Amino acid sequence: MRKVYADYAATTPLCLAARMAMMQAFDTYGNPSSLHQTGVEARNLVEEARAKVAKAINAEPDEIYFTSGATEANNWALYFGMCWVSEIEHDSLTSKCFPGLISDGSGVIKDIVRSSIIPTPHTISVGMVNNEVGTVQDVKYWGEFAHSRNELLHTDATQAVGHIPVDVKELGADLLSMSAHKFGGPKGVGVLFVRRGVDILPLLHGGHQEAGKRPGTENVIGIVGMGAAIEWAVSKLDESVPYLTRLREKLTDGILDIPGVCLLYTSPSPRDCS
Amino acid sequence: MRKVYADYAATTPLCLAARMAMMQAFDTYGNPSSLHQTGVEARNLVEEARAKVAKAINAEPDEIYFTSGATEANNWALYFGMCWVSEIEHDSLTSKCFPGLISDGSGVIKDIVRSSIIPTPHTISVGMVNNEVGTVQDVKYWGEFAHSRNELLHTDATQAVGHIPVDVKELGADLLSMSAHKFGGPKGVGVLFVRRGVDILPLLHGGHQEAGKRPGTENVIGIVGMGAAIEWAVSKLDESVPYLTRLREKLTDGILDIPGVCLLYTSPSPRDCS
Repeated sequence: MRKVYADYAATTPLCLAARMAMMQAFDTYGNPSSLHQTGVEARNLVEEARAKVAKAINAEPDEIYFTSGATEANNWALYFGMCWVSEIEHDSLTSKCFPGLISDGSGVIKDIVRSSIIPTPHTISVGMVNNEVGTVQDVKYWGEFAHSRNELLHTDATQAVGHIPVDVKELGADLLSMSAHKFGGPKGVGVLFVRRGVDILPLLHGGHQEAGKRPGTENVIGIVGMGAAIEWAVSKLDESVPYLTRLREKLTDGILDIPGVCLLYTSPSPRDCS
Repeated sequence: MRKVYADYAATTPLCLAARMAMMQAFDTYGNPSSLHQTGVEARNLVEEARAKVAKAINAEPDEIYFTSGATEANNWALYFGMCWVSEIEHDSLTSKCFPGLISDGSGVIKDIVRSSIIPTPHTISVGMVNNEVGTVQDVKYWGEFAHSRNELLHTDATQAVGHIPVDVKELGADLLSMSAHKFGGPKGVGVLFVRRGVDILPLLHGGHQEAGKRPGTENVIGIVGMGAAIEWAVSKLDESVPYLTRLREKLTDGILDIPGVCLLYTSPSPRDCS
């Protein structure tokens, strides 16, 4: 029996580009912080990967901070100051923020909680693609909304990067989280994008790595895999988006043919759930 | 010209055992938190590695928490409550703790600061092997000292594990940090050992991984590499300790033959520095 793996929102297989790049990086064993040649070789690999991540989301390399994954990136982004999220976000966000955003029954974030007794937030966080039902939020709208109130916009783009176009300048995002293993890279490595001009305190302390913002010897092999995977995933978006849309439609149409079945959590509106 | 890499205290080359195990793990792409077969396969790899790490330091598997490295492990171990360290520890410790321990000129921790105006610590942290000069501390003594005062003992064993025998029960350690890339494993993965009965709050939030103490999808490939590397490094301690000791003596003897050179930072005492 042929095995079909359909849990790509949980994690993806390692893509060939990442696998090849990681195997090559096995031999580049220096510590990127070492000043000698062996260290410089490892530093170059990290910086090449940073440039690839930056290019993939239309950011600058110095706006890219490598982390141990999106959970750390989310924790870091929203660690300082009051933040608001909706109740449909990932636990790494809802556990740290006030549920100040309201989503409707189909998973679309629609409004904010209006109350004079809730402190105004420092950052509004809107997930770009919901990790359970796939709803795509209007991040650009929420960015303009946040900026009109002198707040920052964070978006958890973990389920978006490599699957739909993500352009931090177009979105107006100040902070953006992602994780390599959602688009063909290895698990245990992610990125927090921090827009130039946004000052963020380190979450961890004790080293000068990542421009002094995220200490600890870099996960060189994982970072190399992330760079290769994001370059590969973004380069094939033109093919993969229509292909996956066709697959999704085929699956949902087939399931909806079963009598009594309806599709509840979907955008723009529930289908056949009268 | 043959290249000699002598910066193993900064990082080590990836050992063959880790490399082979990591290449195999490339194909086990499931998310360890997924309940289906593909997820269970990845979960099994993580738990096998956890058992190897536990065995290597005479701990129990449920005392092993994977992190993104020793810097995160140190930050986590000493995040809650007042901690004391000496000034010769790694930045990830000195940046978080009070310098309540005093070391002598050869890098040996000798005493505590005695003052009634300094709050007593919750945890005393003594690095097992100093990362700059290699001094080996009497961790067992400091463990007994800490416990006699109802304090916990944390030891940063990053430069010790895989290089000298480390037995958490013998040491009486309550918390112990290590990093895979110091003993032939990959960079970006480490462990915090937390003795059974010691309750530690999570540093990061938002997931049930690592018994609810350290969220985020596990760095499966890195963890597999760490497990393979620690098993390999500890299995060859009987050979590597005398071999490296001979190499060190040969190097220092050769350097000391140069007129006017003396060896200052060494234990038990400076050599030829009259």
